[in-house]
Parts: sequence; C-alpha cells; structure tokens
Amino acid sequence: MPAPRRPRIALTLGDPNGIGPEIGVKLAARPGNRARADIVLFSDPAIVEAGERTAEVTLGLNEAGAPRLEALDLVTAGDIEPGKATRAGGHAALRALDAALAAAERGAVDAIVFAPLNKHAMHLAGLAEEDELRYMQRCFGVDGFVSEFNITGALWTSRVTSHVPLREVADAITVDGVVDAVRILHRYLVAAGTASPRIAVTALNPHAGDGGSLGREEIDVIAPAVARARGEGVDAHGPLPSDTVFVAARDGAYDAVVTMYHDQGQIAMKLLGFERGVTLHGGLPVPIATCASGTAFDIVGRNVANVEGLQSAFDLAAAIAARSVAPPH
Amino acid sequence: MPAPRRPRIALTLGDPNGIGPEIGVKLAARPGNRARADIVLFSDPAIVEAGERTAEVTLGLNEAGAPRLEALDLVTAGDIEPGKATRAGGHAALRALDAALAAAERGAVDAIVFAPLNKHAMHLAGLAEEDELRYMQRCFGVDGFVSEFNITGALWTSRVTSHVPLREVADAITVDGVVDAVRILHRYLVAAGTASPRIAVTALNPHAGDGGSLGREEIDVIAPAVARARGEGVDAHGPLPSDTVFVAARDGAYDAVVTMYHDQGQIAMKLLGFERGVTLHGGLPVPIATCASGTAFDIVGRNVANVEGLQSAFDLAAAIAARSVAPPH
Repeated sequence: MPAPRRPRIALTLGDPNGIGPEIGVKLAARPGNRARADIVLFSDPAIVEAGERTAEVTLGLNEAGAPRLEALDLVTAGDIEPGKATRAGGHAALRALDAALAAAERGAVDAIVFAPLNKHAMHLAGLAEEDELRYMQRCFGVDGFVSEFNITGALWTSRVTSHVPLREVADAITVDGVVDAVRILHRYLVAAGTASPRIAVTALNPHAGDGGSLGREEIDVIAPAVARARGEGVDAHGPLPSDTVFVAARDGAYDAVVTMYHDQGQIAMKLLGFERGVTLHGGLPVPIATCASGTAFDIVGRNVANVEGLQSAFDLAAAIAARSVAPPH
Repeated sequence: MPAPRRPRIALTLGDPNGIGPEIGVKLAARPGNRARADIVLFSDPAIVEAGERTAEVTLGLNEAGAPRLEALDLVTAGDIEPGKATRAGGHAALRALDAALAAAERGAVDAIVFAPLNKHAMHLAGLAEEDELRYMQRCFGVDGFVSEFNITGALWTSRVTSHVPLREVADAITVDGVVDAVRILHRYLVAAGTASPRIAVTALNPHAGDGGSLGREEIDVIAPAVARARGEGVDAHGPLPSDTVFVAARDGAYDAVVTMYHDQGQIAMKLLGFERGVTLHGGLPVPIATCASGTAFDIVGRNVANVEGLQSAFDLAAAIAARSVAPPH
C-alpha cells in the first residue's frame, strides 16, 4: 500500500439558500481540516461572505495555510433568499458543483465534498437527471457501475436497486447487479482503510425465502452472486434475512450491508441515526461525499446547523484520497 | 366504558424443551400477577415441576391465591429433552394450547398467554398450518380477519401481507385489506387502553411513490384505504414513507404503524428491541399473547432466561381482558 499523501479536496457550499454556506465555512475554518488537506473552495465570494457572517468566522481565504478560493460568478444581489428553493439557488449550487467536477477531471483535486443541495431548486434550474449522482455520472461521462453509499458511524450500506417501484424490484435484481454492488462497496471500504471488510448481503424475501417457499431470488440470484464475490476474494456473506442483519451489523458483525431495495436499507439506517451520517458517491473519477442531512431551510441563518455530518463526509473523502495514488475508480 | 373486571387468564408453558416452563412458572409465581388475575395453568404436572426446579420457585398450585392447575397428560418419562426440537415436545406444546383454546371457547377464560413454541417441533408433531395463528384460527373456526400485532415498548405494528414473496406483495395489497388491518389494530389498541390511537400507515414504494413516479399503490390503494378508515373515525395517517415513519413513531408521533409487508415492519421492530417485545394475536375469541423471543434452546435449564417479555405479554392480555365485557373479537 502506498504511503498516504496530502489530499487536495474541493469543497462546494451547496444551495446558497440552505445551511450549506454556514456549515461549509465552519468546516473550512477548522484548523484540523486545514492541517491535513489542501482545501479548494469553489464558490461565489458573496455566498462565502454570507456564510461567514452567519457562522461568525473569517476564513482568510488565499492566505498562507488557509483554503484557496476558486472564485465563481454565481449570484447577483437579491439571488440569495434564505430558506427558499429557487431557480437561482439551484443554479448556483449546480454551477459550483460543475467547477469542482471539472477540477477533478483535470486532476487538480483528489476528492470533492459538497454541502447540502436542494433537489427541487436544482430541477427549477434545469437538472434533468433524477439526482446528483446521475448528473455527476453524465458530467464525467462514466459508463460503468456507480453507487451511492450511505454511512452511519462505522456502518456502510449500498443498494442494488434504488428509485424503482417495489413491484419492479424482484425483476431488477440480477447476479451481475448484485456482484457489481458488492465489488464497488468492497473497493471503497478498502480505499477508506478497512483492510478486509465483512460485507453482508441481504435477502429479498421474508425469512430469506425460507428455502424457496417464500420466493426463489435468494437461490437463483443472490446466493450465486455472493459465491462469485467470495470467489474474487471478497468477504461477502448472505443472503441474510433483512430483519435481523441490521441488528447484527449494528452490533459489529459486519462493516457493510448490501441491500436489494431502497427502503430495506433506509428503514434501518434512519433508525440508526443516518441524519447525522454521510453519503459517498462511488464509481466516479474521485470520491465525492456529502452529509446525509438536507438544506434545513427552517433553521437557515441562525448559526445552529450542525456541522458534524459534513465533517464526517470530509474525513471520509480525505481518508480515501490520502490512501489512493490513483483514486479507486 | 364498563368497569374493569378481574380477568381469568389461561397460561401454557410452551415447548417443554425450551425456556417456556421456567419463565412461565416464574410469571405464575409473582404475587402481582396473582393479585390482578385468576391464572389457570394448562400443563402436565411433570412439566410444571421441571420448570419449578429450574426456576427455583414453588407455585403451590390450587392453594388459596395460587394459580389453578388444569392437569394434562402430555409427557412420559424421557419425553423432556432440554434444548431439543422433538416431536414429543411439539406434541405437548400443541395439546396444552388446545386445552387453553377449548377453555376460551367455552367461556372459562378471558385471555390466553403462552410461553415460547418451537415451530420445527410443532411441525414434527403434525402442525399443518404455517404458524400458530393460522392453527388457532382453524381451531376456533374463525373465518374473519385475523392479525398478528408486534409490540415493542409502547409501539404496535401489524402488516397487511406477511409470509409472501416480495414480488407478490404489490398485487396482494387491496383497499379492503388495508382497511381491515387498520380497523383491527385500532380495535385492539382501544381495548388495551389507548383511547384514540394514532395509527400510521406506511407507503409501499420508496418516497411514498413520489407522486406516482415511483409506483401508484399509494394513490390507488393506500390513500383511499386511509381515507375510508378516517371516515370510520380512526385517527389514521398515511401513506407515509416507510424509511422515516419508524423514526417518528419511535419518537412518539404514533401509537402504531400498519406496514405493507413483513420486512418493512420487522427491520424496524428488531432494531427497536422486539426480542424483548410481545406478539398479540387479534381476531380470535379472546386475546392471545406471547413473548417475541423463542425457545432459546441454548440457555434452557440454567435459570438465566429473561421473563420480562412474557410478563409484558401477560400485562397486555390482562389489560385487554379486564377492559372487555365481551372480548374485542
């Protein structure tokens, strides 16, 4: 394994009408973060200043030891409307992200951390994709498998299917799809520092299909996929009943759980405190992380928004970037 | 509402090879339980004595203030094999349950509490139904809607579908089925003492179908069912996204959650500590409750099995029986 290097991390402040600017500025102000990474802030100076005012900190951008600002022209007077989902807010968030993606593409940064986006605002601003992961995938021109990881504390999850109706889930699960999901999760866990991650793979049906009497996907699809992943050296386990696997994972038996559908993982993760967790986007040229919490329009500007989720996203992105000479894509 | 009456509660000790006899005997020995209910123990004296020896208590059966024993001939010497799933064990458990069901049918008891059963042992002994609820339904000749409630702390859940493959769930959900599930849950919560229970009804699809783009069951089935239940005076809410509803319920926003499929509720309930919870069977002539935990073959006979789940089952059965002049069937 190569020696850790000092990572260069792009930071964007998310939707300027949400809590992103205030928590992003706080993150960039912390001496510990400045000490372990070169932080490059992609934003409009007016948005940074608004964040500094609310957060009651001064970043001293571009001074020695301080984050560098890539100054963008994103907003005009009156464009910032705290607590509102607007076209201008969505536009500013997307264009800052674009600049960070371009920097990653040209090799100028090793990871990206972004503060909360607002999906409605981005759609108002012309986002055509269902979410930012698909958007970033298109921007990078990535054809391969991409995956969103949800991380709470030490537990990682990903899913084989995501935003599809429940009635379509069973047919959407394939051996290749499950193997892809296990493989990419394994790769990022290793990149983040877990040498031999223990990965649980959920069943689809109640009681893991109960030997076939409650569904055959465990026998026909999931077990063969787990066997193939194990054949590649991944410490994969399953298919495991989804109503007990999260208790085992919470208690430390697994580092990660690959789920078959959206709510199977999200029911558990939200009960386990995912609102303070991290979402990591995998399969792109650099690791891209954000906090699981949203723009929190109801508390914008009061300097009460919690920065710890974004801090965890930064920690994770920095850990992966520091360990990877080439990013794990 | 009628004045509470002193309930008559049938108690069976479950599988004689599991922890049932020792925790059942402890339950029956507690002065508080004896003070608030007439306990009728349906068992074989040999099983009771084995439980008394392990639990280190003496019940003084049939003495003044003590439980009454309905002595059954269930086992012979050598039939008790602690820690094993056997035909004899399943036979003894089923026949004790039969005697309690018969007592309920003839009006001799107001509720039944049973200690853990072992499904494999019962199948060895000839159980044809998929579980004890279907067995009891057939014994009582009940044609109407029956439901299993899972209860952890103050939170109740039930489900519209249960042991069916996930690919069949969407088609198995009907307006009538959802309304039946909400109605029976409401009736039992009221019977247990919650005057106007707040009942959440989950969505089927991720993000509650997101306005129809991720599935139409919320629009076509669940919302109309919730509206109908509300029209009947039930404080029902939904369809609610299943990945956030349990966080809200855990935090006190709802008394109960009606789920659409097995793992949707069980993922949450097991994380919330259901192994110390209660299962209540509704829709039968009397309330029938048991602890959620099983026969725990690995700790049988060591006097370390926890009795609190069974105590909660007893408390619930007693509360419903005390409040109902006629049981809520």
